[in-house]
Amino acid sequence: MSSQVNHAERLARAALSRLSEPGDPRFTELTTELGAVELHERLLAQRDVNDLLADVALRLASAEPQRELDRAARLGIRFVIPGDAEWPDQVGDLAGAGELHERGGAPIGLWVKGPLRLDQLAGSVAVVGSRSSTTYGDSAAGEIGAMVARSGAAVISGAAFGIDQAAHRGAIAMDRPTVAVLACGADKVYPEAHTALIRHIAATGAVVSEAALGCAPQRVRFLARNRLIAALARGTVIVEAANRSGALNTANWANRLHRVVLGVPGPVTSATSAGVHHLIRTGGAGLVTNGAEVLEAIGAAGDHLLEDPRGPATARDRLSTRQQQVLDAVPVSRGAGSDSVARTAGLGLVEVRRALTHLEQRGLVERSDDGWRLAALAHT
Amino acid sequence: MSSQVNHAERLARAALSRLSEPGDPRFTELTTELGAVELHERLLAQRDVNDLLADVALRLASAEPQRELDRAARLGIRFVIPGDAEWPDQVGDLAGAGELHERGGAPIGLWVKGPLRLDQLAGSVAVVGSRSSTTYGDSAAGEIGAMVARSGAAVISGAAFGIDQAAHRGAIAMDRPTVAVLACGADKVYPEAHTALIRHIAATGAVVSEAALGCAPQRVRFLARNRLIAALARGTVIVEAANRSGALNTANWANRLHRVVLGVPGPVTSATSAGVHHLIRTGGAGLVTNGAEVLEAIGAAGDHLLEDPRGPATARDRLSTRQQQVLDAVPVSRGAGSDSVARTAGLGLVEVRRALTHLEQRGLVERSDDGWRLAALAHT
Repeated sequence: MSSQVNHAERLARAALSRLSEPGDPRFTELTTELGAVELHERLLAQRDVNDLLADVALRLASAEPQRELDRAARLGIRFVIPGDAEWPDQVGDLAGAGELHERGGAPIGLWVKGPLRLDQLAGSVAVVGSRSSTTYGDSAAGEIGAMVARSGAAVISGAAFGIDQAAHRGAIAMDRPTVAVLACGADKVYPEAHTALIRHIAATGAVVSEAALGCAPQRVRFLARNRLIAALARGTVIVEAANRSGALNTANWANRLHRVVLGVPGPVTSATSAGVHHLIRTGGAGLVTNGAEVLEAIGAAGDHLLEDPRGPATARDRLSTRQQQVLDAVPVSRGAGSDSVARTAGLGLVEVRRALTHLEQRGLVERSDDGWRLAALAHT
Repeated sequence: MSSQVNHAERLARAALSRLSEPGDPRFTELTTELGAVELHERLLAQRDVNDLLADVALRLASAEPQRELDRAARLGIRFVIPGDAEWPDQVGDLAGAGELHERGGAPIGLWVKGPLRLDQLAGSVAVVGSRSSTTYGDSAAGEIGAMVARSGAAVISGAAFGIDQAAHRGAIAMDRPTVAVLACGADKVYPEAHTALIRHIAATGAVVSEAALGCAPQRVRFLARNRLIAALARGTVIVEAANRSGALNTANWANRLHRVVLGVPGPVTSATSAGVHHLIRTGGAGLVTNGAEVLEAIGAAGDHLLEDPRGPATARDRLSTRQQQVLDAVPVSRGAGSDSVARTAGLGLVEVRRALTHLEQRGLVERSDDGWRLAALAHT
């Protein structure tokens, strides 16, 4: 990995990555403020830095950043930090975005496995949602994942059960790379049942984690992970989410970061759509129904503009309103004189006669012995 | 019917109601501009008024307003006009709202059958949608109709198949009056299959039409009717609507009139929800999932405020984030010492010991021979 960053900086960040929990705002903020090297040195010198020292004392003794980097390299995992060509600059937006659930701040570094470079994710789309999704939600997530991937944008998700895996699989079905952001270390897999999926993503796209190697997935790490997904992507789509779903945490982060947030509606009777509906209803997300609409909303201005959906045009559509009005006044079976049609239509006789001739030419009305009536075609 | 309006005005409006098509902007605008009596006199005197005379010539001969009013009275139908105590002032908003599909303007008068007075509709809610609705849509419309009716607001709809009838029936199930606005004369029923429904509404609520007695339901009358529904109600809810549904025409009118417009989402795979989704997606309607949300959105400020939906709180929710972090670091089966827990949690030993004591008191962790582990309860 070529980089302009000096090695001391990388070692300090690797050490801080081990010492801190992902997204602990005390660490992320001090790193931004003091620099990683200075913060690490203060901790090593046992100089209390705010209230950090008490928390890290036990881990400080065992931190060996060079050995961690070596071990990561052997596992095919690289440690990407600010200043690296690969660093995804958009995650810097987290530095000013405050805290949610005591998580916040820009990541100190990202552990990455896979051929996809993180600096390729500026136009990417996160697709997240319920772990206990329905077939309906999986199918919507899969379609969106496929359409986004086909357009050339990467699909980012969390490799969880349900919507996450459906979104990844949609991209994989298009033979496109996808990105799994994990709450555990990049050398581990979670959930275990997705071992094959996560290995495939690591081989073709990227597996990313803010947590140090070997870390188990814990609650705060999921919360930190959600914030990272929101920050990496240009926009986030929530497919199904019950009222307390973690996907809503991702949506909140995306809103804080002024990213595009979209939700796929479902039946109002479905509890797994309730969180999405609440989000849309309260202005926290726009509504989308398919991948094309996602691309329209998240794509660069001018890209992916959709045509307004319309039903098929009928012969009637090509008539003026007044011609339609005359057509409506022509009886179905018994014929009527043009004066009778005019009275029914509430229009003048001259205009009605002109309209009837026009309608006859279009095959919509016909002249019979007892006057005008609808042509057979016009019934349909 | 007591009124401050003089009889000449009522007669002139009854005549104009017969001569014009509902919502013909040439009539509605000239009536607003010249007054009904003056406009009617000009037409009778064969003085051409813009291009109206040619259109009404054939009807003018047969118009007999006093006989029409007498006939209406015998049928239990009253003709309500501006100036009557019962006149719903909100429809006056149509006068400045422009045209859609060559319909527009405030109605010249309204033919009404039923005990409910039109001046009671200021807080009413229109519920409209697809005629070819699904069971899902009918059920949503019925629930909304029932909740709106129960709150004391009238439910307005068009008595059509599908969503309209489900909304009316929802109100009727609550033993509350509902309003059917018809595209045919107030003495007729359409569709015929809803004869019993429309009779019931006429007996308990109100059947309203802008069209003169005896008029058949025609295309332009449906368009004019939709505009009237939107104008009468404080807000309009679209439950199911395909991309070309007439319900979208009602929604367009409601938006022009600065009324609240709401849509109930459905599965993105359902064609009957596509029009609603498009409306919400493009900012033409807010999303609602039930009657309580409709009341919150349409009700007067401060009425019907809903609580944010939340899942049930768990013992874990009552912990601080750092206590949760400690709980996450406690192993499930084999016990761990507090220093090991502290290292895993990335927190200081003193704080971790305090947290463990707290968690033990809550029954979330337990002390065993080999250290701390999760209590059985905490697994769930």
